[in-house]
Amino acid sequence: MTAHSAPKNITLIGVGLIGGSFVLDLKHKGLVGAVTGIDLDRSNLDRALERKVIDRAFDHICAEAVGGADLVMVATPVATLPAVCAELAPLLDGHTVITDVGSTKQSAIDAFRQYLPQQLPRCIAAHPIAGSDRSGALAAQFGLFQNKKLIICPHGAEDSDGLRLVESLWQAVGAQTFRMSAREHDAVFAAVSHLPHLLAYAYVHQIATHPDGGVYFDFAASGFRDFTRIASSHPAIWADICLANKHSLLALLDGQQQQLAALKTMLDKGDAAALYRYFEEAKQARDDWAALQ
Amino acid sequence: MTAHSAPKNITLIGVGLIGGSFVLDLKHKGLVGAVTGIDLDRSNLDRALERKVIDRAFDHICAEAVGGADLVMVATPVATLPAVCAELAPLLDGHTVITDVGSTKQSAIDAFRQYLPQQLPRCIAAHPIAGSDRSGALAAQFGLFQNKKLIICPHGAEDSDGLRLVESLWQAVGAQTFRMSAREHDAVFAAVSHLPHLLAYAYVHQIATHPDGGVYFDFAASGFRDFTRIASSHPAIWADICLANKHSLLALLDGQQQQLAALKTMLDKGDAAALYRYFEEAKQARDDWAALQ
Repeated sequence: MTAHSAPKNITLIGVGLIGGSFVLDLKHKGLVGAVTGIDLDRSNLDRALERKVIDRAFDHICAEAVGGADLVMVATPVATLPAVCAELAPLLDGHTVITDVGSTKQSAIDAFRQYLPQQLPRCIAAHPIAGSDRSGALAAQFGLFQNKKLIICPHGAEDSDGLRLVESLWQAVGAQTFRMSAREHDAVFAAVSHLPHLLAYAYVHQIATHPDGGVYFDFAASGFRDFTRIASSHPAIWADICLANKHSLLALLDGQQQQLAALKTMLDKGDAAALYRYFEEAKQARDDWAALQ
Repeated sequence: MTAHSAPKNITLIGVGLIGGSFVLDLKHKGLVGAVTGIDLDRSNLDRALERKVIDRAFDHICAEAVGGADLVMVATPVATLPAVCAELAPLLDGHTVITDVGSTKQSAIDAFRQYLPQQLPRCIAAHPIAGSDRSGALAAQFGLFQNKKLIICPHGAEDSDGLRLVESLWQAVGAQTFRMSAREHDAVFAAVSHLPHLLAYAYVHQIATHPDGGVYFDFAASGFRDFTRIASSHPAIWADICLANKHSLLALLDGQQQQLAALKTMLDKGDAAALYRYFEEAKQARDDWAALQ
């Protein structure tokens, strides 16, 4: 089966940046029939209808919204996935493939196993690596996934057809697809995505709550702007992600505290050579990474 | 006296991004006569001559390079300022104004007081807020300081003419000038510039030295890119800055460790409400700041 075999009816639960951009591109390529949007926020649904991101809108999960869908994509904050799966369970057709886009994959697979045991062969855990500090249907855009990575985390019980459907649709919108275990996924993204978000929030929180924070902000410039951009990310989405991946993050926060302790020792001793080496190693690693992007 | 009163002969010690961009704009506006560049790196001097950033080049400080200058601008890493001042002391004309561009100002004023006591009335400590992760004469560019901030930190012993000369030249290249005490300056820039650099280096160092760091880097994306951009900054320049401002930084690192400890507690307890509030406060502060830029 390929994405090109027939247009699919898609029900999108959570009509925001990720799900909205996904269906926009599929529509543009003629790969989707009708898109049904489900969202708690009525004004967000209205914007999505106006922008033709979706064709039908529902403000709750119901048989009319879900029945007949070839694919149900859950694109809500990760902590809501168990409740969404529980609501979906009695409503799903026998052929419907269910997928998510969450940033933590062990928690997603746990939710599928617990609340959709009958449908588990058609549950596909996926994660597109295309973040933004913007959110909602207005943020949906064409081409968001072009040359971005998409991780599928097989749980071992899936049908190959469902897995290939999800993979081929993501490839159709331009993503490079990868497969890895949910455990490996969560460790990788704790390190390169969740931890930097936590650290950016922690830094801004420190400055904002400092007695002289007001003056400090007046003189913040371009380095500050880039370093803190991800602290403008959606707080609910990120609180959910961090809690869903807390074991990886707690270990990484310990590691970060050790780095800060080492830096304090170098500063305290005035050890210019050690500080230079430390910065140089980091710069080299970052430059090597940037050269490959 | 204004910047427009007469073209000035400028000797630039350290021909890099900051000093190079400053004289490029002054040349463009006809506000400078000859620019003499002094730099340890002969190939950097050659590039600066080719690009007409400077008109004459010397690879060491000498009477020929410094004599007759109306302004000597020291734009070398901050730790080198004391040695540079000591070399300059016997060579300076009675009318020459001396200024620096370093990111730490208590250390600059200490160097002026100790090594240029005779010239102290003509020593002006200044700091343009225009960073980049690029460096060297090739990085020099027109318009770098347009609408950027420039801080002058009076030490109390300066002639008003020297202070106004420096201020007016920075205004001529487009900078908004501010005055504040060196102590206040160092506290402000520890918070909004030096600490983020340390934290970006610390984060990249942690990932780069992690046993699975290689795989982690493969999946780093746009959030990672922006958060770590300043970890590509020049290691020697930043080791100097951090050591020159170590007391402010040690206090801020303590504060950052407290933030991380608080986050660990919230994660460990699974306290979603507290984590949400924490992220929301940071996002609000960052969004408010960004709206004013």
